[in-house]
Amino acid sequence: MTAPLHRPRPGTPDTQQGMRRRNLSRVLHAVAAEGPLSRAAVAQHIGLTRAAVSTLVDELIRAGLLEELGPQRPGGVGRPGSALMVSDRGPAGFGAEVGVDHLAVCAVDLRGTVRARAERRVSNRGRAPGPVLRDLAALINQVNGEAAAEGLRPAGLAVAVPGLVARGSHTVVRAPNLDWHDTDLGALLPAHLPWGDDVPLTVDNEANFGALAELWLTADRPADFLHVSAEIGIGAALVVEGELLRGARGFAGELGHVPVRPEGPACPCGSRGCLEQYAGEEAVLRAAGLAPGADRTALLAERADAGDAATRRALRGAGSALGIALTGAVNLLDPRAVVLGGALSRLAPWLLPSLERELTRRATTPADGVLISQLGSEGPLLGAAHSARRTVLDDPMGSVRA
Amino acid sequence: MTAPLHRPRPGTPDTQQGMRRRNLSRVLHAVAAEGPLSRAAVAQHIGLTRAAVSTLVDELIRAGLLEELGPQRPGGVGRPGSALMVSDRGPAGFGAEVGVDHLAVCAVDLRGTVRARAERRVSNRGRAPGPVLRDLAALINQVNGEAAAEGLRPAGLAVAVPGLVARGSHTVVRAPNLDWHDTDLGALLPAHLPWGDDVPLTVDNEANFGALAELWLTADRPADFLHVSAEIGIGAALVVEGELLRGARGFAGELGHVPVRPEGPACPCGSRGCLEQYAGEEAVLRAAGLAPGADRTALLAERADAGDAATRRALRGAGSALGIALTGAVNLLDPRAVVLGGALSRLAPWLLPSLERELTRRATTPADGVLISQLGSEGPLLGAAHSARRTVLDDPMGSVRA
Repeated sequence: MTAPLHRPRPGTPDTQQGMRRRNLSRVLHAVAAEGPLSRAAVAQHIGLTRAAVSTLVDELIRAGLLEELGPQRPGGVGRPGSALMVSDRGPAGFGAEVGVDHLAVCAVDLRGTVRARAERRVSNRGRAPGPVLRDLAALINQVNGEAAAEGLRPAGLAVAVPGLVARGSHTVVRAPNLDWHDTDLGALLPAHLPWGDDVPLTVDNEANFGALAELWLTADRPADFLHVSAEIGIGAALVVEGELLRGARGFAGELGHVPVRPEGPACPCGSRGCLEQYAGEEAVLRAAGLAPGADRTALLAERADAGDAATRRALRGAGSALGIALTGAVNLLDPRAVVLGGALSRLAPWLLPSLERELTRRATTPADGVLISQLGSEGPLLGAAHSARRTVLDDPMGSVRA
Repeated sequence: MTAPLHRPRPGTPDTQQGMRRRNLSRVLHAVAAEGPLSRAAVAQHIGLTRAAVSTLVDELIRAGLLEELGPQRPGGVGRPGSALMVSDRGPAGFGAEVGVDHLAVCAVDLRGTVRARAERRVSNRGRAPGPVLRDLAALINQVNGEAAAEGLRPAGLAVAVPGLVARGSHTVVRAPNLDWHDTDLGALLPAHLPWGDDVPLTVDNEANFGALAELWLTADRPADFLHVSAEIGIGAALVVEGELLRGARGFAGELGHVPVRPEGPACPCGSRGCLEQYAGEEAVLRAAGLAPGADRTALLAERADAGDAATRRALRGAGSALGIALTGAVNLLDPRAVVLGGALSRLAPWLLPSLERELTRRATTPADGVLISQLGSEGPLLGAAHSARRTVLDDPMGSVRA
């Protein structure tokens, strides 16, 4: 990981104060990504003088965000007394996920280590937001208790949902597989949390958080890729130069309703022949002659692995449809790579051949390759937690003041 | 137009010098967009103190980029002596266009006014790059002569081409309708120019420059839109938060080869059922039973206007195919609007009804509307010239030193 780009906001002039904030962030990001680092190494990393870096480092140590490794600590650093690490106490990023079949919460410390995690299998399909969010809050409280016992406090909470979230809001505009509409988590969730409104809350689509997890947590991931994830729905997220393309209203990435065969089967969305009608989990189960159950992906993987012809044929068809829809996406977006995440990563062995055949044959300038996520279905939760963690790295003093 | 976002480059720390450069640019952009402006008005616009702005203004006046309107000049400004305008002499942006059926060149001054323009109708299809670029250089020299007579000198030359250009290069990787492959304009063009390599050269796809022209020159254009342009090929460009999405290799926007009906007619690109097979000019002429000629758009518009049933039916079919391909694009990208440019703008009356029907019926979250370009086929040339002009506004002292 390299230090990210910190941009002054549009329209605002550069100021000394803004410059200092961005440089504090650069120091903290450099140590988080590459630490332990000496002050001299930090200076070299970010291209400031050693004197300037020392002042910034001192401020971050006083704030409890950096710590100096004492000479008693072993390690390969030349002068161990001067090596810096980000703190493993203090602010932590909390991530939560509302899935169709489960709820999950975790806390990562500033070093990026998961320090507490809780999960509950529960069918949320068609369940009202109130009870779902009460259950989620119970998991958050449990994780918070465990984290507090280790000296961690939440710097932010990010919630991943399987639906469209209006940009810059906490509102799930539409989550068809939960049957939620215009659900404002900012109004509903804080009442159940010990900290109420005192910890910043973010809500975003699970595919977006999944893509951020790929970007931040997988070695050698390019900075430009299209991340496709599927469970019941099929979502995508585009990362451009290391940042999410969210769309004007936050709704970018609706790959599941790209028309594959415009005169194909009717889709509940009102269109016909959408990708989900060919490659959504329920469509694949139907094509394979299997009944939809709790762990759909496991069932498909198991049958395909056992050599079941109908399942394999259904997955080949899903792969072709994905290849056709992705041809359009690759032609439009020119990503460096396509990454298959979520349930798709587990089914990749049977999807990939037909998917790649369509893409190679059709795309004007095919991406360098189709990669398989190593994070799988854990991606969105990790992406959410790391996104909350990174708000501290992006504006260290903002989080201390808060 | 508002002052754009100026970002320090990724990985580089903020410095005093970088800050000063960005603030000089903010001042020049503000006066270019809103001038004449007093120093106080500039200060208010960009949020710096009046004293800081005055120093920056003095530097820009010394460099000949700003001028002070004397008290003898009429105008509505309170204290006319203090009103600032960008200069209409000195650096100019040169734009050039290599079309399938024409070549064009223009020069715009820092105020954005076209000061010289030349065009030549010539069929470039299948013509070797050498002769085409010699003809283009002759037009550039003609425009340069006219511009020089008015005290203008080229600050940059930007060339629009109907093909894929590798990002950050001068190389046309593929221009099917010219039959150019891996053509490096940086190696071929400067030899024919009076300034050789001394003026910065940019080469980009015509759809990209068309989209930039929409963004910069059309009032009330949103900062997030998908620009679709068509002549023989169909291209698109996506503007996100006021910047082009270029794709990892510079190839984003290949809307023409998005699959509309995956089992449809074979396309020279190797795929089947691409959008161009339904909505490219030649496909539409064929469907209308018309012979391809020199001014294809005019012929189609004339026939449709005269009520020719076959032509109208062919345009309705093209509109439907555009609507299906744009559904995928809108679902993936969530633009605020779709803008039809190039030949499409002239044919819009007959394309729009079927296009909008498909889009409304199919898109998960339709854009706010389909808009028609007012620049039409002049867009790419203007976008190129203004892109060269804006390199001066973006880094005023860089252009003076050069």
